[in-house]
Amino acid sequence: MADRAELEQAVVQQGEKVKKLKQEKASSEEIAEEVAKLLELKAKLGTDDGKHKFVLKTPKGTRDYNPKQMAIRERVFNTIINCFKRHGAETIDTPVFELKETLTGKYGEDSKLIYDLKDQGGELLSLRYDLTVPFARYLAMNKITNIKRYHIAKVYRRDNPAMTKGRYREFYQCDFDIAGQYDPMIPDAECLKIVHEILSELELGDFSIKVNDRRILDGMFAVCGVPDSKFRTICSSVDKLDKTPWEEVKNEMVGEKGLAPEAADLIGEYVQNNGGLDLIERLLKDPKLSQSKQALEGLNDMKIMFEYLQLFGVTDKISFDLSLARGLDYYTGVIYEAVLIQNQAESQQQNNHTEESVSVGSVAGGGRYDGLVGMFDPKGRKVPCVGVSIGIERIFSIMEQKAEASEAKIRTTETQVLVAAAQKKLLEERMKLIAELWNAGIKAEMLYKKNPKLLNQLQYCEEAGIPLVAIIGEQELKDGVVKLRVVSTREEVNVARPNLVEEIQKRTSQF
Amino acid sequence: MADRAELEQAVVQQGEKVKKLKQEKASSEEIAEEVAKLLELKAKLGTDDGKHKFVLKTPKGTRDYNPKQMAIRERVFNTIINCFKRHGAETIDTPVFELKETLTGKYGEDSKLIYDLKDQGGELLSLRYDLTVPFARYLAMNKITNIKRYHIAKVYRRDNPAMTKGRYREFYQCDFDIAGQYDPMIPDAECLKIVHEILSELELGDFSIKVNDRRILDGMFAVCGVPDSKFRTICSSVDKLDKTPWEEVKNEMVGEKGLAPEAADLIGEYVQNNGGLDLIERLLKDPKLSQSKQALEGLNDMKIMFEYLQLFGVTDKISFDLSLARGLDYYTGVIYEAVLIQNQAESQQQNNHTEESVSVGSVAGGGRYDGLVGMFDPKGRKVPCVGVSIGIERIFSIMEQKAEASEAKIRTTETQVLVAAAQKKLLEERMKLIAELWNAGIKAEMLYKKNPKLLNQLQYCEEAGIPLVAIIGEQELKDGVVKLRVVSTREEVNVARPNLVEEIQKRTSQF
Repeated sequence: MADRAELEQAVVQQGEKVKKLKQEKASSEEIAEEVAKLLELKAKLGTDDGKHKFVLKTPKGTRDYNPKQMAIRERVFNTIINCFKRHGAETIDTPVFELKETLTGKYGEDSKLIYDLKDQGGELLSLRYDLTVPFARYLAMNKITNIKRYHIAKVYRRDNPAMTKGRYREFYQCDFDIAGQYDPMIPDAECLKIVHEILSELELGDFSIKVNDRRILDGMFAVCGVPDSKFRTICSSVDKLDKTPWEEVKNEMVGEKGLAPEAADLIGEYVQNNGGLDLIERLLKDPKLSQSKQALEGLNDMKIMFEYLQLFGVTDKISFDLSLARGLDYYTGVIYEAVLIQNQAESQQQNNHTEESVSVGSVAGGGRYDGLVGMFDPKGRKVPCVGVSIGIERIFSIMEQKAEASEAKIRTTETQVLVAAAQKKLLEERMKLIAELWNAGIKAEMLYKKNPKLLNQLQYCEEAGIPLVAIIGEQELKDGVVKLRVVSTREEVNVARPNLVEEIQKRTSQF
Repeated sequence: MADRAELEQAVVQQGEKVKKLKQEKASSEEIAEEVAKLLELKAKLGTDDGKHKFVLKTPKGTRDYNPKQMAIRERVFNTIINCFKRHGAETIDTPVFELKETLTGKYGEDSKLIYDLKDQGGELLSLRYDLTVPFARYLAMNKITNIKRYHIAKVYRRDNPAMTKGRYREFYQCDFDIAGQYDPMIPDAECLKIVHEILSELELGDFSIKVNDRRILDGMFAVCGVPDSKFRTICSSVDKLDKTPWEEVKNEMVGEKGLAPEAADLIGEYVQNNGGLDLIERLLKDPKLSQSKQALEGLNDMKIMFEYLQLFGVTDKISFDLSLARGLDYYTGVIYEAVLIQNQAESQQQNNHTEESVSVGSVAGGGRYDGLVGMFDPKGRKVPCVGVSIGIERIFSIMEQKAEASEAKIRTTETQVLVAAAQKKLLEERMKLIAELWNAGIKAEMLYKKNPKLLNQLQYCEEAGIPLVAIIGEQELKDGVVKLRVVSTREEVNVARPNLVEEIQKRTSQF
C-alpha cells in the first residue's frame, strides 16, 4: 500500500509540474514530454486497479514528423544531397540493424547507449549507432578499396534526449566519406569545401570551422610530458574546452586524472592557439613541438591542406585550433568541427524566449580514420578514409524555429490546381477533367464531395496554398472552356479546354 | 564430441552445396546466402576451438544497397513520389519503433513475426511491422480527422526470407492513404487510379487489378451458410485461390476447417466470377446474394466505384473478382490487389534462367479500413480510411533483373565534367578550376592525385560515364581557355574560361 501511496503522490507532483510548465509557456515539446510521463504514471496507477490505460505516444526520445516538418526536412536534404552529387558522390544504404558483433568494440564507453534487439532465436542484433561503422563493414565485406559515397539514414542511441536542442534517440545522420589511397590532403580539403558549401547554402547564419589533427594533439601531449596511458583521457578533457573555461579543464586533468600540474600548464599554453598558415609556420619552428615526429607530420599535412583550402577559396571560415579534440577513438589524422556563430542581437532576442536555444553547438564534424576498415578485414588490410557528418537534426531544429517565427506559410503539397464546380451535379465532369490533368502530369486535387459549394472549394485553396482553380459550370461545358482563377489576385480567364494544361504549366512555373 | 563431428559434417555438406550452386551459375544473391550459412557454421566450429572468427555479413534477411541498386531505387521512388504529389498528397514520418502496446492485437497470428527490442530499462519497444498501424496511431494521437498522406519507409518482419523473390526481413513500404469522412467511393476510386498510373509509368509490363469488397465476401459467406465464427478462416482459404486450384481450397475448407461441403460448393460457384459492371448488375439481381444487406451495400458501392473508374479511364485493367480476399483483419470495405501479367514468351525465356523469377505475384494492394483509427482513440472516434501500398521490393527486384539483362550502363553519379590536367604540376590549377565549377553549380570531379596521367583521367570518365572532360595544360592557361572534350565522340573544343560554365550546362542538359 505504501507503493501505491507513493505512486499517487508522484502523479500529483507530475501534474503540478505540467501545470507549471504550461503557465511558464514552455515549448510544446517540453510539455508533451512531461504530459507523457504523467500519463505513464497514471497508467501504472490504473494497472494497480486492474484498469490499464493505453498511452498514446511515440517512444521516449523519438518524434513523428508532421507534413510541415517533412517539407522542411525535404528542403534541407535536397540542398545537402545536391552538394554531395555536385562532388561526384554515389550513395549506398545498409540495414537499420547489424550483427551485435559488428558494433562491439567500436564506441568505447558509449557502447552502453546501443539499442539491442531481443533474442528471439537466431542472430543477436543491434540497431546501428552511426553510419561510419556500417560503412567500414560494407567496404571490408565487399573488398572495396575506393569509393566516394554519401549515406543519409537514421541512427539510434539510448542517450538522454533533449528534444528542444534537437537531440533525439532516433535521429538522422548525413555522412559523406572518401575511401581510398590518394595523395595527401586532397580528399581532406574537399570534405571541408563541402561543409563550407552546405552551411553557406542553408543560410543558417555565420559559421566557423575548426580544424586540428590527432597527430598534432598526440605529439603535443608527448612533449608536454603526458604519459602515453593518459593520452585518450586527457584528449577528452581538451575536448571540453569549447564549453568549459581552461581553469576547470585544468582542474579535471590534475585533480581527477592525476596529470602533473606543469604538464597541464604546458598544454594550456598550446591549446589557446588558433589561426591559419602563420600559426602552422610558427609551430613548425616551435622548439618543443618540433621534437615530436608525429606533430611534425601533422603540421606539414596541415600546411598542405591550408594551401589547398586557399585554392578552394574557403579559408575565411576555417581556423586551425589546437583546442579541438573530438571524442571518437577512431580518428587518426585531420579532425574538424563546424559551429554556428550567433550575433549578439540575435542571441539576446532568443534569450528572452528560452535560454536553451542559444547554444546550437556543432552542426558538422568529421575527420580521417585510416584504421577502421582494417578492423573488419580478415587480413587487416587498411583502407584510408576521411569523411564528414552533417548534424542534420540541429539544422532541422533551427529551420523549424525559423519557419515558426516567419510569416511565410510553408506549403506541404505541390498541388498546382484545384478542379472545382460552380454548380451541383458536376462530379462526373470534375472527374473527367481531373483525370485529363493527371494524365498530362499536372498536380491536381478536387474535393471528395458530390456537390461541394464553390466557396468551400475556394477556401480550401487558400488554406492549402493552391495557386489556381479550374472551375467548370454548365456554361463553360457548353462553350468548351474552363474558367481558370488565380487564387491570390482573383483574376479569372476562360481557357479553351485544349489549352488548359499549357496554361496551368505556364502560370505555375514560377512556384 | 558427437556434436562437433556433426558440425564438421554440416560444414562439408554446406561447402558442397555452395560449390554446386556456383557450378549451376545460380544468382549471386542465392550463392551469397549459402556462403553466409557456411561462414556461420565455420565460425561455430572456430568458437569450439576457442578461436572465434568474426563473420562479415548483414543480418539474415537483410541486404546492403550498392550504388547501382540505389540508382535504381531512386528512379523508382521518384516515379512513385511524383504520382503521389500529383494527387496532392503530403508526407509524414514516424519512428522505426513503436511502444510494443501500439502493435499488440493488430496483426492476429502474424504478431509472432514482430521484432521486439531488448528490455534495457524503460519502455518496451517493437520495430514497426507496417506503416498502417503507425499511421492510425498518428491520426488518433494528433486528433487528425482528414489527411491525404504518403509514407515511404522500412518495415520489419521476422519472416522466412526469399531474397531472390524480393522478400526480405527489412523492406520498404510505400503507402498512400486518404483519411476522412467523404462521399462514397470517390477516394477509393482515386487510390485505384494511382495504382494504374504508377504501374503504367514504371513500365513493368502488363498488369491487372482485382477488386472486391469485404462486405460482399461476408454477405456471400452468410448466404452460402458459413457460420459467423468461420468467416475469417474461410476468408483466408479463399485468399489462396490465386495460387491454389479450387479443389484444394475446397478440401481445406471442408477437411481442415469443418465447413459443410454444400456451403463450400456454393462458395465455389460465386468465387469463379469476375468481370465489370455487367457482373455487378447480375449479382445485384442474384436471388440468394441479394438477400444479404451487407452484400447489397457492397455491390451498390462497387457499382458507383466502377462508374467513377470509367470516368478516370482505367477500367481496362480493373476487374471485379469475387475470389479476392486479402489476409489482413482490418479491412472493412473495398479491397484490391494488382498483379503483373507475364506473356508466354517472356515467361519461358526466364524459366531457362531460374524458375523462381516467373511468379512475381502482387505488386500493390490495399483497401478500406474504417475501424483502425478508432482502436487508438480513447473515445473510439472513428476516422474512415482507404489506402494503397506499393510492393516496392518486388518492383526493385524486377528493375534490377531488367538492368542486369540490358546492355545500357547505369550511372551511379551525376558528374557532368572531370577536371583534368594534360601535364604534371597542375594540381593547383585543377583545384582553382574545379572550385569555380562547384561554385557555379556544376557537378565536377577530379582525380585525387598530384600528377595523374591524361590517359588515366580519360579512362576514369569512360568507366564512370562522365560525359565531358575539362582539360588544362600550359598552353590553355596561357591562352585563357579550357579544352573541353566530349568523351563519347572525342571531339575537342577550346572554350574561353568565362564561357566554360555555360558551355558545360549546354552540353549536358540532355543527360
